[in-house]
Order: sequence, then C-alpha cells, then structure tokens
Amino acid sequence: MYKAKIFVNYKPSVLDPKATVIQQTLTRLGQTNVDSVMVGKYFELVLQGNEAAVNEQVAKLCSEMLANVNMETYRYTLEEVEA
Amino acid sequence: MYKAKIFVNYKPSVLDPKATVIQQTLTRLGQTNVDSVMVGKYFELVLQGNEAAVNEQVAKLCSEMLANVNMETYRYTLEEVEA
Repeated sequence: MYKAKIFVNYKPSVLDPKATVIQQTLTRLGQTNVDSVMVGKYFELVLQGNEAAVNEQVAKLCSEMLANVNMETYRYTLEEVEA
Repeated sequence: MYKAKIFVNYKPSVLDPKATVIQQTLTRLGQTNVDSVMVGKYFELVLQGNEAAVNEQVAKLCSEMLANVNMETYRYTLEEVEA
C-alpha cells in the first residue's frame, strides 16, 4: 500500500490571482517582508498495489484528472505505508 | 530569508466534498484500489527576517488568513533559503 503526496501548482508563466491577493493583502497590513507567495493544491491518496502499478496510476490520475496540464504542473512522491 | 511550506486541510470530522467526488469518480472508472483521498491547500511563502520572527508571523498568518480554524487545521515547515 502506498501513500501518494501530490502537489499541483500553476506554471510560473500563469497569473495566480489568489497568490496576488494574498501578497497585496499582506502588504496592506504592513507585512512587507513577504517576497513571494505561491498557492497550490495538495492531495494525499492511499492506493493498494505494487509500486510500479501505483506509480503509473498516479501519473495518469495527475495528468488526466487532478491537474490541468495546460496551466498547471504536478509532482508527487510515493511512500510505502502499513495497511 | 525563509521559505514557509504551509499545508491546510479539513479537520477529519469535516466532510470534504472534493475528496468524495474524486474517490467516487475513481471507483466509477474501475480504480477501486484507492483507499482514501484527501484534498488540501498548499502555500509557499518566502519571508525576510530571523527565524523566530518569521515563525510567529507565519503562525499568525495561517490562523488568521490562510486557514479557517473552525473547519481546517494547518501545519508548516520553515527552511532557510539563499537570497
């Protein structure tokens, strides 16, 4: 059994309005020491199967469901967990 | 300068409709080996200042802006980065 930790983020070239709003709000609150803000999505899935099969399944799931590959990139790690 | 990696998730007692939809869709697609799905938010901020000050600032930011502490929990790590 494997736990997949999946991060989905906008590509750097894509405007991220949520991140912009957070940074502007912080600036307005006087917190001008914040150099950059990045907002993403995080998924944790627990999957049964062997590592190769799970890896292939997660890659497909990311590119076809969880991420919009036109605008977003994804990365993930797999770690074995006890049942 | 520190990079804060912040994870915001629903508390386990709170229904997460996005996670439910993902799991139901996977089941419908025949991927019945997925035991659990968790959907969360992920933020990366780069902040100037010393570690104690940044730590306090990020904790406040999480509890007062990024997370709804009634329904969500947050955790974060700080790591030193080069300017």
